[in-house]
Amino acid sequence: MPYDPFAWTASAQRRRADAGLRRTLRPRAARSALLDLAGNDYLGLSRHPRVTAAAARAARTWGAGSGGSRLVTGSTRLHARLEAELAAFCGFEAALVFSSGYTANLAAVTALTAPPGDPGLLVSDAGNHASLIDGCRLSRAATTVTPHNDPEAVRKALRARGTGPALVVSDSVFSVDGEAAPLAALAEVCRAAGAGLLIDDAHGFGVLGDGGRGAPHAAGLAGDPGTVVTVTLSKALGSQGGAVLGPARVIDHLVDTARTFIFDTGLAPAAAGGALAALRLLRREPARAARVRAVAAGLYTRLAAAGLSTARPDAAVVPVRAPSPRAAVRWAADCRAAGVQVGCFRPPSVPDGVSRLRLTARADLPEAELERAVGTVVAHAPAGG
Amino acid sequence: MPYDPFAWTASAQRRRADAGLRRTLRPRAARSALLDLAGNDYLGLSRHPRVTAAAARAARTWGAGSGGSRLVTGSTRLHARLEAELAAFCGFEAALVFSSGYTANLAAVTALTAPPGDPGLLVSDAGNHASLIDGCRLSRAATTVTPHNDPEAVRKALRARGTGPALVVSDSVFSVDGEAAPLAALAEVCRAAGAGLLIDDAHGFGVLGDGGRGAPHAAGLAGDPGTVVTVTLSKALGSQGGAVLGPARVIDHLVDTARTFIFDTGLAPAAAGGALAALRLLRREPARAARVRAVAAGLYTRLAAAGLSTARPDAAVVPVRAPSPRAAVRWAADCRAAGVQVGCFRPPSVPDGVSRLRLTARADLPEAELERAVGTVVAHAPAGG
Ligand SMILES: Cc1ncc(COP(=O)(O)O)c(C=O)c1O
Ligand SMILES: Cc1ncc(COP(=O)(O)O)c(C=O)c1O
Repeated sequence: MPYDPFAWTASAQRRRADAGLRRTLRPRAARSALLDLAGNDYLGLSRHPRVTAAAARAARTWGAGSGGSRLVTGSTRLHARLEAELAAFCGFEAALVFSSGYTANLAAVTALTAPPGDPGLLVSDAGNHASLIDGCRLSRAATTVTPHNDPEAVRKALRARGTGPALVVSDSVFSVDGEAAPLAALAEVCRAAGAGLLIDDAHGFGVLGDGGRGAPHAAGLAGDPGTVVTVTLSKALGSQGGAVLGPARVIDHLVDTARTFIFDTGLAPAAAGGALAALRLLRREPARAARVRAVAAGLYTRLAAAGLSTARPDAAVVPVRAPSPRAAVRWAADCRAAGVQVGCFRPPSVPDGVSRLRLTARADLPEAELERAVGTVVAHAPAGG
Repeated sequence: MPYDPFAWTASAQRRRADAGLRRTLRPRAARSALLDLAGNDYLGLSRHPRVTAAAARAARTWGAGSGGSRLVTGSTRLHARLEAELAAFCGFEAALVFSSGYTANLAAVTALTAPPGDPGLLVSDAGNHASLIDGCRLSRAATTVTPHNDPEAVRKALRARGTGPALVVSDSVFSVDGEAAPLAALAEVCRAAGAGLLIDDAHGFGVLGDGGRGAPHAAGLAGDPGTVVTVTLSKALGSQGGAVLGPARVIDHLVDTARTFIFDTGLAPAAAGGALAALRLLRREPARAARVRAVAAGLYTRLAAAGLSTARPDAAVVPVRAPSPRAAVRWAADCRAAGVQVGCFRPPSVPDGVSRLRLTARADLPEAELERAVGTVVAHAPAGG
């Protein structure tokens, strides 16, 4: 028998193919005629000339990479400036930049549940993003998963808490259906129980709150001593990377202890420079945040009017339910063939097992394109969609 | 009592301060007079004009960010080209690019220990990098940690294997002391037991093997059906990102199932473009790999001749032992004050609890600078170093 220790991946793949769950990489060209309603470039800044020029300048000035861990040679003044401006914009004392939103979430969940001697309790929403779930798995704290968007269940879970600290973890806007978390209610529950609150604002930052300051800002939690927020630089800021925002002491604690900070190369200067330019544009043009919400509302209204199974968006994400994984894939492929790219979410990327198309609003989407996008999605809807 | 759920971080911080284990971010300027022997820019390519120009061009052509998950809009032809050239260079069938080496390792360890029904066995070297350890923690496979660089112990651990698959995981070059793993012996053990071998070649790629093709290539494992390799784009290629190399079927399996691939934004185009340009430079100028090894040997010989506690480097990393965490910090600070930046590794970043300076060789380090670096390190050595 030939040596083939990974043979099992072939049968696993066949099983996925039978269930309609294979995934395909479809490398895109630099200029595409496709209308993009699938990405997370919510503010339309990823290709803004000022943003790309800042990214290019940063590569030339600082190098293509940061050169090492942020604790060795990977911290530049550009990283420091980005951190200062992110913290100030969102209303927090300090910020720490990571190579991705994923690693920022791993850091925040694990480092904030690691007091010496007693790892304490984690309470995690059932709809949380994979990176928060992986953070919970990496943490040594006991984890209670609470039903989606249920502050009362969180309150009950916190009652079971022992002597150690407790941390409640939630997305601010859930990535599949785009619905918001009840942040004010969660904060109240945390405050009553003396628990910390960690909010992943990946899909709220740049979209919600005054001028895009994010969902925690909108909920009055900016600068709250019990609130820590993570954001990504890869969505509204059109770049790459992530950041943790919170009390300076908490940020210092992450510098000292977070494994995905200490043992990871610092974010590339081009990504930091691009994100900083995008943040400055957003500050100067706060209407971008309102515009992306208006576009999302416009998508929803039209899709609902056409009888599709959608949900009123709290931010920029608009879901449309499909009858099956296969139907979702075909629907998305038909839209693409007709010139419109939409997201297609299937198990295991959907918490409830229901496959969906996922349309994302962009601040730079003209009204006519919005009409065309909706028209295409409606025209190719499967029976029973 | 005021609401302050993170108060425990302050006492944790005091404890670390008392033990000499606080860490400080020291943002650097774009042009520094410091001689850098701390970073991982082994081939001196991070600021090479072709590499930074390629990074800048990629940002302008493709945008500051990739726009979404590689499975949605985040796969560009640039990513595809980088993957094809990485795989061909290292002699593997296929490659998959990630946002970091850290997330590439998490993906490889977790996705290759997830056969339906039976997660199997992981065998992990005691000196492995944090990202591999986190991968083991995230995997549902049972994990046996074997003594450092001990193929016989790996053989014994594999005997305890049940019906499921087994995966042996090791750095190729260990990041703290720079010593190589016995890859040929590990591969033989794996082959005999029908186990897979996952090699993290972060510090071997670009440095070891024919023209920098890496430690697995040097060990005759390129294209081996039982070997999967991870590399970083952030060290020898002077950029950011990571990649998994292996049989096409294994790469397809990662596309379908690896959480840090599916649920993470694709690598920024500038980082992909910079890494691709660096790879092409290395292909055209293979002497860079030999040069970095010669510089490392030169550092070692001089440090050892001066009576310091160092170790013969197998790649580009040269360790120097320090008597205590505090002494290491002071030693590194004295070197920096004298114009030479070296790494300083303390618990928990050192597997054996012994603090060290860590010098990294660079292919572009002139002989005179090498002399100056060693002179500075020797001049500031603490008593008992
Ligand atoms: C809710 C949420 N959190 C975190 C992340 C990870 O951020 P990044 O892609 O920047 O790593 C994502 C998506 O990618 C997300 O949707
Ligand atoms: C052995 C090893 N593996 C993986 C990594 C992670 O790679 P990256 O920094 O590109 O995320 C590093 C260092 O950062 C490393 O030293």
